[in-house]
Amino acid sequence: MNLPSDPATRELLDTLRHIVGAAQVYTDGDLTAFERDWRGRVRGRALAVVRPGTTDEVAAVVRACRAAQAATGVSLVPQGGNTGLSVGGVPDASGRQIVLSLQRMTAVRALDAANASLTVEAGCPLQHVQEAAEDAGFLFPLSLASEGSCTIGGNLATNAGGTQVLRYGNARALCLGLEVVTAAGEVWQGLSGLRKNNTGYDLRDLFVGSEGTLGIITAATLALFPLPAARITAWASVPTFDAAVALLGRARQGLDAGLTAFELMSSFALGLVERHFPQLEVPLSGSAPWFVLLELSDAESETHAAARFEALLEPALAEGCVLDAVVAGNLNQSRHLWHLRESIPLAQAQEGLNVKHDIAVPISRMADFIMETDAELAAAYPGVRFVVFGHLGDGNLHYNVQAPEGSDPAEFLARHEADINHRVYEAVQRHGGSISAEHGIGALKVDLLPRYQSPVALELMRAIKRALDPTGLLNPGRVVRD
Amino acid sequence: MNLPSDPATRELLDTLRHIVGAAQVYTDGDLTAFERDWRGRVRGRALAVVRPGTTDEVAAVVRACRAAQAATGVSLVPQGGNTGLSVGGVPDASGRQIVLSLQRMTAVRALDAANASLTVEAGCPLQHVQEAAEDAGFLFPLSLASEGSCTIGGNLATNAGGTQVLRYGNARALCLGLEVVTAAGEVWQGLSGLRKNNTGYDLRDLFVGSEGTLGIITAATLALFPLPAARITAWASVPTFDAAVALLGRARQGLDAGLTAFELMSSFALGLVERHFPQLEVPLSGSAPWFVLLELSDAESETHAAARFEALLEPALAEGCVLDAVVAGNLNQSRHLWHLRESIPLAQAQEGLNVKHDIAVPISRMADFIMETDAELAAAYPGVRFVVFGHLGDGNLHYNVQAPEGSDPAEFLARHEADINHRVYEAVQRHGGSISAEHGIGALKVDLLPRYQSPVALELMRAIKRALDPTGLLNPGRVVRD
Repeated sequence: MNLPSDPATRELLDTLRHIVGAAQVYTDGDLTAFERDWRGRVRGRALAVVRPGTTDEVAAVVRACRAAQAATGVSLVPQGGNTGLSVGGVPDASGRQIVLSLQRMTAVRALDAANASLTVEAGCPLQHVQEAAEDAGFLFPLSLASEGSCTIGGNLATNAGGTQVLRYGNARALCLGLEVVTAAGEVWQGLSGLRKNNTGYDLRDLFVGSEGTLGIITAATLALFPLPAARITAWASVPTFDAAVALLGRARQGLDAGLTAFELMSSFALGLVERHFPQLEVPLSGSAPWFVLLELSDAESETHAAARFEALLEPALAEGCVLDAVVAGNLNQSRHLWHLRESIPLAQAQEGLNVKHDIAVPISRMADFIMETDAELAAAYPGVRFVVFGHLGDGNLHYNVQAPEGSDPAEFLARHEADINHRVYEAVQRHGGSISAEHGIGALKVDLLPRYQSPVALELMRAIKRALDPTGLLNPGRVVRD
Repeated sequence: MNLPSDPATRELLDTLRHIVGAAQVYTDGDLTAFERDWRGRVRGRALAVVRPGTTDEVAAVVRACRAAQAATGVSLVPQGGNTGLSVGGVPDASGRQIVLSLQRMTAVRALDAANASLTVEAGCPLQHVQEAAEDAGFLFPLSLASEGSCTIGGNLATNAGGTQVLRYGNARALCLGLEVVTAAGEVWQGLSGLRKNNTGYDLRDLFVGSEGTLGIITAATLALFPLPAARITAWASVPTFDAAVALLGRARQGLDAGLTAFELMSSFALGLVERHFPQLEVPLSGSAPWFVLLELSDAESETHAAARFEALLEPALAEGCVLDAVVAGNLNQSRHLWHLRESIPLAQAQEGLNVKHDIAVPISRMADFIMETDAELAAAYPGVRFVVFGHLGDGNLHYNVQAPEGSDPAEFLARHEADINHRVYEAVQRHGGSISAEHGIGALKVDLLPRYQSPVALELMRAIKRALDPTGLLNPGRVVRD
């Protein structure tokens, strides 16, 4: 147990206990779950973890910390499910950061069926949001691997992506309104179920994706969608990357909004799945360099959906754009195909440490990006292996680099990760892409950003940060540095 | 011809002539087209109209005006097609504002078919954008009455809505990237065709909808969509407002993203069309209090689309949710139905001046809003007539109020417009709505905003304005006042 030595800090902690209750301020015991990031790369040290139960308590905590900031040097790190991949939600090593956990704010505040909207508190786990929507006969389409643990507040604070972006957009596109506690400890009541509202600057979208550095999202009103009558999945092998892009174009044209996912996987990536999970059968295994998982959501029926897939795939097969294809005959088969796709990161972890990239480039540039970057890295690091997969329909690839077979992955990463990152991000930039498609900046990429954002953009961002959080109370050192 | 008397202003105008060419700086002659707002409500007086031809010229103009701002008191009013409905794009009466017209920047810079994106300059008329997309086999779905005259830069600066928002979103949702000249006269190069990009704050959405007060949009990269294989229209009479809402729910569920428009019209509004355009035949005329126009865009065929409409409308008819319905049998019939809808504002103008409102409320609150507001106004102004129509699918109504039959509309407006506005906006606020759904704030509603936005929101907006335009050079007095 670490008692803070200075009276100002002790007084602040007493004030926080008074606000949220002594039981909701953790200062000792095992705080690992709040201090270590999801991938286990970073372990910080919190002055305290504070768990408010209401928006007013969040606001009071912010005001108390701001009042004591000069005397104590504290700052706040808002945290949801702590599943972020860019080290944006854990404290640094200073011992001067207070984790403001939204975990207790899990209420579903309102469901408005006629308006197709749902208002939930920030700490509500994504899966509960999905379930609340489904219980009312609606779809909340945001879907990602950590949905059992991540919170909707964190999803919005990072503008999460996931597997349904192609049709429904990123988290930002699913958000109609927000309630936010500002850096001054005031509550912006911007919860609104409106689809159209042009009354001033777009505060909502500014807070979304700002990773807790401009304000603390405490609740959100979300857009709901009709539950599809049927959702079916197909698995296709394609002869080239260009063929995958051509198939995407055909699928967009033929299925329009029915196309809810278009995932690309390299043969090598699926080979890792077969190697490490031999019980999983990979359809058409090894017969092509690239594989595509397509998902079709249909408002009519499974029969209709299957006919639409057939109308898409038959001519593509005949013209050689697709080499072979299987359509999942039932829900279990469909789940199996998704399971294969989702097993790639796990198989990769089994294979050993690797250098991960969450990048986007325009779809038209992606083939060149991969060819050039593969060639450059293969020349610099002979034997290096590429685990490429991701959301081709969104132009978002997880372009991961695995140490050469037989080498020690940990040693390889220790020596080469920074250079490999550098080469990949330089290539991304040459092709007009983004070094963080869906994972955000956090602390992980904050010092990379100045190289890959223009000085004009950075200065605009800094001006906004200074305007909305002049004392640097909220998640300092994340997204942009002063 | 008004020669500016002070040397600083003369020098500034010389500098501007040097930047854009003397022929592109208008200081005399008839400047009405630049000085008068679209609805003819306001006529300002410009110090000059400056028409740059490139982004660099826009930036140089901004820098020159900023440098001379203290000595001359000038400010800049960015202007596209000058079709805005909230007086956001015309100069005030001071004679100290320079209209920066984007009219000459009309280039289509790039079309990327594989990426389904299009990059155009801000001055490109919306209709040209639509045509450029269609020429390449794509749909650019933004569509509104002034599309022949308005520019894409203005559409983005005001986050325009229109008739396809239900499926494709507002202008904001169609924009992938922006090029913006900042208030410092720097160029933010944020053109990007990426669907996923989480590298810092969302500058794009901050500039979109900021009505030229935070920066000047000079180009945009837009998202394109597949052209539907068929687009058909239905016209339905419904017994009550609630039945219209119920039909919307059914249509969403049954047609999902195929439902591209759901427009509501009151019987009285259509009656005005019949009165003033007797050559137009209104289907099912007079048989119900409300009428709905539904549009279905289908990726398959006209036959399929017709079958889907039938599957929607038959049970709705059987259950009394719909009284009667007709489906347009061909493109001409479909155009006729849209023409009826679009004739309402014209018929209303023929009927005489009226008090217009562009409001949004959650769809679930709309019936109560209309009932209560109708009753309140009818009690306060006996004989007053309600012309209600709009985008029910987006929760956006044009709730317009016409003087009692036989009264003098001009006199009625002069005496009662402010009070009617007040009553309507108060009701909107009680029902959690927006006083400007798709028309923006401009100068028209800038002094209303403080009543209908919270002090917290207003202070955030002012902080952003001060951060991005500290000298108040860009469109001062619009959206938020300092």
